[in-house]
Amino acid sequence: MPVGHETAPRTVDESRTALVDAGLLIPSGVAGVYGFSGTFEGVIEQFERYVTRMGAPLGPEVMRFPALFNRESYLRTDHIACFPNLMGSVHSYDGPGRDVPDLARRAAAGEDWTSGLSPTAVMLTPAACYPLYPTATGTLPPRGRTVDLRSFVFRHEPSPDPARMQIFRQREFVRLGTPEQARAHRDSWLERGTGMLRRLGLDVEAVVANDPFFGDAGRVMGASQREQTLKFELVLPVTSSDKPTAISSCNYHLDHFGGAFGIRTADGEVAHTACIGFGLERIALALFLTHGFRPAAWPAAVREVLEL
Amino acid sequence: MPVGHETAPRTVDESRTALVDAGLLIPSGVAGVYGFSGTFEGVIEQFERYVTRMGAPLGPEVMRFPALFNRESYLRTDHIACFPNLMGSVHSYDGPGRDVPDLARRAAAGEDWTSGLSPTAVMLTPAACYPLYPTATGTLPPRGRTVDLRSFVFRHEPSPDPARMQIFRQREFVRLGTPEQARAHRDSWLERGTGMLRRLGLDVEAVVANDPFFGDAGRVMGASQREQTLKFELVLPVTSSDKPTAISSCNYHLDHFGGAFGIRTADGEVAHTACIGFGLERIALALFLTHGFRPAAWPAAVREVLEL
Repeated sequence: MPVGHETAPRTVDESRTALVDAGLLIPSGVAGVYGFSGTFEGVIEQFERYVTRMGAPLGPEVMRFPALFNRESYLRTDHIACFPNLMGSVHSYDGPGRDVPDLARRAAAGEDWTSGLSPTAVMLTPAACYPLYPTATGTLPPRGRTVDLRSFVFRHEPSPDPARMQIFRQREFVRLGTPEQARAHRDSWLERGTGMLRRLGLDVEAVVANDPFFGDAGRVMGASQREQTLKFELVLPVTSSDKPTAISSCNYHLDHFGGAFGIRTADGEVAHTACIGFGLERIALALFLTHGFRPAAWPAAVREVLEL
Repeated sequence: MPVGHETAPRTVDESRTALVDAGLLIPSGVAGVYGFSGTFEGVIEQFERYVTRMGAPLGPEVMRFPALFNRESYLRTDHIACFPNLMGSVHSYDGPGRDVPDLARRAAAGEDWTSGLSPTAVMLTPAACYPLYPTATGTLPPRGRTVDLRSFVFRHEPSPDPARMQIFRQREFVRLGTPEQARAHRDSWLERGTGMLRRLGLDVEAVVANDPFFGDAGRVMGASQREQTLKFELVLPVTSSDKPTAISSCNYHLDHFGGAFGIRTADGEVAHTACIGFGLERIALALFLTHGFRPAAWPAAVREVLEL
């Protein structure tokens, strides 16, 4: 199978099979949910260190949130209206002990059992920067804030394409501040991120993009987002030689989150926000599918950047 | 507030307030769901390296699963019967676009909206070793297997005690093999784990324990587990000086998982399994509450072990 040479044509199914056969991805039986080998994880770790080094001049605050997001905070965003199909709502059992045998029996018999559950206080995190905003309610310092985040995030979109997982990690640098500060952050990371990925032999291209807003109304929102050039993606062919995949994105949110969570600049205006997000699994997949499955055999220049 | 000296008395509320005030824990508004500062994460990273070094002589396979677990695999365990109150079932929206405005309206009005959701193919992971077992169906190699795991896991038990989080990380070494291999793994890690934690100035004690089985029937199961001494916990006071908390546990599962997932030894018997699990957030909390909030000021011997 012609994997490991960037010029070799490949399909999503060929890529997935090769990655699983090599032990890099461990199937869970659910499309888009994988375990990862130590080799795969090692590449993500080294890429993250590279990101940390490149972000160090900004002196970011470091915060790490788990994959759960306060349900009340979730409902202050418009995620439920824009991306309901992607959400993950966490439910549990809070009934009495005497009903548990019936719950277990229904589950074992293949009958409906989840209608006996109740929603908990949490959702799965839709994007790594969401949990930050509710903690930033109030007034920003005069120079705004720059925050380094990493989180597993959830998108309910089962797919045979390993470059479209249901749960995956995003590493982000988020800027909260004035419109000028936010836009400058987005623009400078668009350039810096492109350079970072190209130095890894990943020949990304920056393209104007839109979020996958749901339904008919969503098409209008997507078109508006593109028209305002709020979102850029860094794309290259990953699992399919025909179809480029975004491995990073650079986003200017205007006052979307500042308004929803009452975040204000030092001079009292609603804060604007922007972020760059690196899709860690997709970047690791791109590296393996471009340079081959043995990091020890990757080009010296790439190994040097990743300190492999 | 007398935090940072192991002899100083403290309550759960004092500990949580101090950890939040110091910026080590970042509240999400949901009990038991926190973000972590870079300093907190750094301690977890260094502890994990220590664990890796200590486990290296075993030559473990490394696997990393995300916090989601195949719903069908979940239902092959008895988690739903034993710990239904702790489960996390993930639900999403798969209805038509035309119903989304009503879904969003109901949510905004504080009405029930989650009954419009459907269960997905995944649950939240109950313990780091669960996702391993379905991948091990079949026959083990003659010497069995030893696997190094780390995962975020979920337990629906909202609590004001930061040592009882709803989502947290477990690092595990799991053994799959004969009864002798499994028991020897559990016993040797009980000793090795105790030594590892004591070298960090954490004066743990090994105690016989049981899992928190639910309801009246659960009390009988817990008593049986204790009687067979299947579970040991390494405990010390963490957030409360009155009440010890388990920061690691060493478990012998008998053929519980081997039977559920059709795992057999080379000579055709049902495999037995055992694990040691380190509770990473609890260990970090114990270190901060024992040695103080500035790792730079921790005892030299502790800093040396953690390579801080």
